[in-house]
Amino acid sequence: MRIHIIGTGLLGASLGLALSAQKYQVSLEDTSPTAQQLAADLGAGTVLAEDSNVEDPQIVVVATPPDVAAQTIATALATYPHATVTDVASVKTRLLESVRERVDGSELDRYIGCHPMAGREKSGAIAARSDLFTARPWVICSDADTPRNRLGEVEAMAEATGASVIHLDPRIHDAAVAKVSHVPQVISSLVASQLRHAPLEEVALAGQGLRDVTRIAASDPRLWTQILAGNSEEVRSVLQDLRTELDEVITALELGPGSTGALAKAIALGNEGHDRIPGKHGQAPTTYAVVTILIPDTPGTLATLFKDIGDLNINVEDFRMDHAPGQKLGIVDVSVVPATQQELEIGLLSKGWQIPESVIEKEGIA
Amino acid sequence: MRIHIIGTGLLGASLGLALSAQKYQVSLEDTSPTAQQLAADLGAGTVLAEDSNVEDPQIVVVATPPDVAAQTIATALATYPHATVTDVASVKTRLLESVRERVDGSELDRYIGCHPMAGREKSGAIAARSDLFTARPWVICSDADTPRNRLGEVEAMAEATGASVIHLDPRIHDAAVAKVSHVPQVISSLVASQLRHAPLEEVALAGQGLRDVTRIAASDPRLWTQILAGNSEEVRSVLQDLRTELDEVITALELGPGSTGALAKAIALGNEGHDRIPGKHGQAPTTYAVVTILIPDTPGTLATLFKDIGDLNINVEDFRMDHAPGQKLGIVDVSVVPATQQELEIGLLSKGWQIPESVIEKEGIA
Repeated sequence: MRIHIIGTGLLGASLGLALSAQKYQVSLEDTSPTAQQLAADLGAGTVLAEDSNVEDPQIVVVATPPDVAAQTIATALATYPHATVTDVASVKTRLLESVRERVDGSELDRYIGCHPMAGREKSGAIAARSDLFTARPWVICSDADTPRNRLGEVEAMAEATGASVIHLDPRIHDAAVAKVSHVPQVISSLVASQLRHAPLEEVALAGQGLRDVTRIAASDPRLWTQILAGNSEEVRSVLQDLRTELDEVITALELGPGSTGALAKAIALGNEGHDRIPGKHGQAPTTYAVVTILIPDTPGTLATLFKDIGDLNINVEDFRMDHAPGQKLGIVDVSVVPATQQELEIGLLSKGWQIPESVIEKEGIA
Repeated sequence: MRIHIIGTGLLGASLGLALSAQKYQVSLEDTSPTAQQLAADLGAGTVLAEDSNVEDPQIVVVATPPDVAAQTIATALATYPHATVTDVASVKTRLLESVRERVDGSELDRYIGCHPMAGREKSGAIAARSDLFTARPWVICSDADTPRNRLGEVEAMAEATGASVIHLDPRIHDAAVAKVSHVPQVISSLVASQLRHAPLEEVALAGQGLRDVTRIAASDPRLWTQILAGNSEEVRSVLQDLRTELDEVITALELGPGSTGALAKAIALGNEGHDRIPGKHGQAPTTYAVVTILIPDTPGTLATLFKDIGDLNINVEDFRMDHAPGQKLGIVDVSVVPATQQELEIGLLSKGWQIPESVIEKEGIA
């Protein structure tokens, strides 16, 4: 299978690395000869002689910045008249409209919009990695007119990177990314912005809560301006809802004692939304039961613990250990489906494991 | 040095663990006998017989919820007439006023307000760890009337936990935590709140960016209502500035093409604020090497993995599993001391485990 990738930034170069490792034949193209060569040197694919086209690639992947994606897709459809053309842009509805304005209907059937939900804080081929897409959602926006065989080719390519394919209508995709990606980006930036003029003695108090909330505030303004402008209606709608709730908090803080109910409500609604973020494998958000086990800090103890859990034939959905050097005990949190919690607790207690009383699963970074 | 800790939740119990390890004599007290006993069982200190007071502690640390801190401090000043009394509450100005209303001036000299800037995602003694304060700021709000020897005792205690002592005026402290802690909490909750009614197919696209921004949205509404109400003026002021910038973004999204400058500005100002956040730990951190392993999602696999790690005689310092939507593959991050990383990787590869290329930085999302 021959794949031609146009745009060798983080996503294009990572895709090239991932597919080259899977025996795809990958060729690379970028408006920057330096970026193109860097991606090739890293092993993302081969670079063609100047002005020559690739010989009949099965798939052309457009991985350019969003603001030139539509034109690049249209050009690729014309240049490679047999190829399936796909892309990796973060907003799908407006891009599809732009492509539609540029090519005629029959050509459009060869275009299948995609959005692999992967990224890093660094950009460019230098930040590329072959496992960027591993275990990440790869959204495919096809419709009834999309030929089955072309759809199958794109699915196979996505799966070859280790990604999980999800089929979505472009509008549903755009509404979703507004909530789960674009609005969090805007808000993270706004929180970080409040630190611009904070004295150093104040920012010195920064803790993990702030670091988490503002991590993505380090993102590239050029890229994000294009993404936000491309999904402006969906993003604006969510931001307006958020502003309404923000105003309620501000009003409650102005009114002082007696209006703390509105503060509690804001935090509680946040709890509710947080609980909807899905757990394992994209299943319905399950609130797993967490069983906490105290373990001695010695090599091999974890193996024994997980062997005992395996012997009970209970699947571990998630687990986490917190432990510090010098501390007498490690604390292991094992998440299981609630129906198996009691069986797990009884089984582990009978094998001599120490399970303290239920942990209150509320965060408290104060 | 004898320390008496009132309130054996996360902070009180962690302090007890840290100080007991440093040969302080620690006694514990909590309104909940269960919480008190759990903290003692974990090694945080000793529990006294009912209704007996501690014999002349040098320092009494009040680590209760904020809404009872002032009264508990006043009571402690009366109960232990020679002790220095300190606390760990997140808001200082209003607490100091409340204490002042309850005790007379000479007694007030024995009170030194503190705020160790440490916390976790969980609450209660069960979540306590001896290194909770390590390399974290420990704010001391003393004034010119504070006796030198008492100040020295509190500084020595804070330093014994591994924390970095910072002296701040209570008002500057409260302005700082509004920006670095309280506003991030409110905003994280508001972002999560927007997911309350999102269809499951939408929240299925949640990635690391959303998870980071909303991690603290799982916080306890009762605790946070007390904190926000206690620092309402500072929090309101920052939220109003943030709302002004939010309005500019919303307006730019409404106006559409031609007003993308305002979008770029919002993200760029976020970059600027983000750059002001100091490095993760102010001082020499213990950084573990993280080895990432891909594992099939079947019962017993974790047991085999940890047995294999145990057979290499390498101790696991921390571990974490992440999930992929719709994919039967788990990603396990195992933290070990750096000197053992290579041995672990080679050992696991030789046993057939799949280790993708080294993961150095956290992934972002676009």
